[in-house]
Amino acid sequence: MTRQTRADGSLRHLLTLEGLSRRELEALLDRAQAFVRPLGARPPSTGLLAGLTVANLFTEPSTRTRVSFELAAKRLGADVVNLEMQLSSRIKGESMLDTVFTLESLHVDVFVIRDAEAGVPALVAASVAPHVSVLSAGEGSVSHPTQGLLDALTIRQRKGRIKGLAVAIVGDIRHSRVARSAYHALATLGVAELRVVAPPALLPGDDEFRGCARYTDLEAGLRDADVVMMLRIQRERMLDEAQLDPDAYFRAFGLTSERLRLAKPDAIVMHPQPMNRGVEIASEVADGPQSAIRDQVRNGVAVRMAVLATVARAGNGATA
Amino acid sequence: MTRQTRADGSLRHLLTLEGLSRRELEALLDRAQAFVRPLGARPPSTGLLAGLTVANLFTEPSTRTRVSFELAAKRLGADVVNLEMQLSSRIKGESMLDTVFTLESLHVDVFVIRDAEAGVPALVAASVAPHVSVLSAGEGSVSHPTQGLLDALTIRQRKGRIKGLAVAIVGDIRHSRVARSAYHALATLGVAELRVVAPPALLPGDDEFRGCARYTDLEAGLRDADVVMMLRIQRERMLDEAQLDPDAYFRAFGLTSERLRLAKPDAIVMHPQPMNRGVEIASEVADGPQSAIRDQVRNGVAVRMAVLATVARAGNGATA
Amino acid sequence: MTRQTRADGSLRHLLTLEGLSRRELEALLDRAQAFVRPLGARPPSTGLLAGLTVANLFTEPSTRTRVSFELAAKRLGADVVNLEMQLSSRIKGESMLDTVFTLESLHVDVFVIRDAEAGVPALVAASVAPHVSVLSAGEGSVSHPTQGLLDALTIRQRKGRIKGLAVAIVGDIRHSRVARSAYHALATLGVAELRVVAPPALLPGDDEFRGCARYTDLEAGLRDADVVMMLRIQRERMLDEAQLDPDAYFRAFGLTSERLRLAKPDAIVMHPQPMNRGVEIASEVADGPQSAIRDQVRNGVAVRMAVLATVARAGNGATA
Repeated sequence: MTRQTRADGSLRHLLTLEGLSRRELEALLDRAQAFVRPLGARPPSTGLLAGLTVANLFTEPSTRTRVSFELAAKRLGADVVNLEMQLSSRIKGESMLDTVFTLESLHVDVFVIRDAEAGVPALVAASVAPHVSVLSAGEGSVSHPTQGLLDALTIRQRKGRIKGLAVAIVGDIRHSRVARSAYHALATLGVAELRVVAPPALLPGDDEFRGCARYTDLEAGLRDADVVMMLRIQRERMLDEAQLDPDAYFRAFGLTSERLRLAKPDAIVMHPQPMNRGVEIASEVADGPQSAIRDQVRNGVAVRMAVLATVARAGNGATA
Repeated sequence: MTRQTRADGSLRHLLTLEGLSRRELEALLDRAQAFVRPLGARPPSTGLLAGLTVANLFTEPSTRTRVSFELAAKRLGADVVNLEMQLSSRIKGESMLDTVFTLESLHVDVFVIRDAEAGVPALVAASVAPHVSVLSAGEGSVSHPTQGLLDALTIRQRKGRIKGLAVAIVGDIRHSRVARSAYHALATLGVAELRVVAPPALLPGDDEFRGCARYTDLEAGLRDADVVMMLRIQRERMLDEAQLDPDAYFRAFGLTSERLRLAKPDAIVMHPQPMNRGVEIASEVADGPQSAIRDQVRNGVAVRMAVLATVARAGNGATA
Repeated sequence: MTRQTRADGSLRHLLTLEGLSRRELEALLDRAQAFVRPLGARPPSTGLLAGLTVANLFTEPSTRTRVSFELAAKRLGADVVNLEMQLSSRIKGESMLDTVFTLESLHVDVFVIRDAEAGVPALVAASVAPHVSVLSAGEGSVSHPTQGLLDALTIRQRKGRIKGLAVAIVGDIRHSRVARSAYHALATLGVAELRVVAPPALLPGDDEFRGCARYTDLEAGLRDADVVMMLRIQRERMLDEAQLDPDAYFRAFGLTSERLRLAKPDAIVMHPQPMNRGVEIASEVADGPQSAIRDQVRNGVAVRMAVLATVARAGNGATA
């Protein structure tokens, strides 16, 4: 595994939450919390990254995540360039590195990388000059660390703590980077009970999500949960692997108001978006009083500001 | 119809010019006029929108209009993000709203929305938080309010007034948001005579463009006009509805120097662009001394600055 | 040929290096050198172009060149807008000019234009208002002037001089704008010997590259060279014109460590990127100690800052 920290222990890259200590996670959450503003308030704006350049390098489209990183970087005073690339698999690693070295020579200081396959962010992190940082914005089904942080921050805000809670993650766990990063964050932060709930074919392998209870029945998985994290399901996976069409999926695993009543009365509902309304979640729940989905988005830009500010601080040669 | 004003009467959204009073239109034109600079002069640059974020959300491509709004926002000091989305019709409204709520949670303050179908800007305006404003950058064949304002400003600059003029709008009136917004602006601002000139199949329905004289003969429609506004014609509409090929269209409805002589000697010629040279307008006219087409573009960025400055002023919570 | 200079002799456009004097080239290189910073240092940032707007107008995709110009302009304080256009050949010139006039009316001061065919940058330069400048970012197989400047700057940095050197350019010379601009720069700057090395079908016509020695044997062309400039080869050209597949091309014209030993021991290797590793260049050479490829990229942004600062200086009405 690529080292994410510098010799002095400070965070240089953020590729995964796995291996970050509780203290490190909490420091990032605290820093992010300081960047949170209520809807309608002016967002924080600082010159912390003035003179630095952030490149968003996305090989799979994700407008929302790109805009979240873009605004986070701009509000810290950085210059931002966006690159969307379609790379053929055969030459992906090599072409990605040539592009990265080009951008590095143009004085890009931080790379934000999103890729549909595993391995590219670590390859880039292992190759760039010492003053350069790499942030994953979603890597295959492996990791989506800023999503895991914003999920943890949202739970902490709404429930006042993470320790001792029961959290149910529902949907295509097997292929979900969101579930993996949530697991890494929440396990380290002391969640009491983490449940993964899915059709049998979409549950993770036995060597993963250690310590999590596994459910193939949604109603059992929801019972007395404090937090319900719904995942986006892809149509092809439903049909090919879970042998369910969208209507059948909704009947078996869709979150409705009625089912939500099985969780604790003050349970919150989360979703990483984009949602398939009427497939994995009913609109009445997505837009209902227990939904924390919009808080997640707002926290996303705060988390990305915190991560950018952390990796690009004094340890970064370019800011010296 | 969605209300465009706040409780105190100030403008919050701009979705249509229909219903704006003469005083309101003139205030916008006056404010825009103050942002106009001659070609070659440095454009105005202010910090009026510093700390605010403007999102250009375009579901149909229009590079020129997007750049005009983008530069208007940047020159007012705002952060700008551009999103081009292809949304399938079936889920458009829902996906658009989820995207808008995401951006709102990222502290976007003003949405500039362009869509090929009617209804989306009003849907968004009815859904966003009270501190957020929505500007239409073109909505189906319904409305293009900043285009209507820049057309009115161009006429006022070149002719010294709008009241009392004879204006001929020529082309595919039936499907034109440009014609509708020009009608709303010019009728309210006291134009003496507004003529719509088109092949019979492209004239508007009888319940629209009330008070306008209708012509199916270009030469009759041009006679003694002060202003000739040409519209872009789409190849498919020509062939399918007007039963004319491009050459036949030009022979019947193309504006040539010879025909322009039927208008007043000091008549001006306008076009919203992009032009089909040799179809609805001859190059000699587009580039000739009576053409105000480049003034329209220059006025466009001034009008968009004025509208942004107006909706985002003190009434906007984010600026407080 | 379009004049590139103003009446006072100052540079207004940069479309080609052909015809620039040694003094003019050296002034641009000196100005660029002042913008060069080592990797990891903060790049220079000035307000020299504050209030000016630069439009990148690319009709063929080139993310790296676009980002290089974009960062150069932003670091000089300019506003930047990016436009990628697909224009059909039939209406290209006309549509390009309508777009350019639109942008000019939006107070764009500098156009950076990239086009796969010859003629468009000169057409635009001949048409814009006197205060507007046009920079070519690559024009067909004709010219790529900022690439020629960054190549010259890289040689000057690494070899201490250009005068008296032996430079071999290897690859598809016939279709290469990079080779043509290198030739114009290096010939004027007093290179001793310029060799073009290619399969017979890819050598230039006899009326071009005057004074250059022609080689169809790579090893002969490399002997005792001070600088080896490799060009990117396109798969179709290899197969259709040189009658070589990628492996056969590499065997005949690929630069390996072994072949590089034929050049001077301190020879440097250059490539304009993107590279086809294993086709025109071996990875061991591209990433080896004699490679100056990353210096070229770093110098690229410095050269583009120098060119922007030069054309947009006092002679530019918009800065007055």
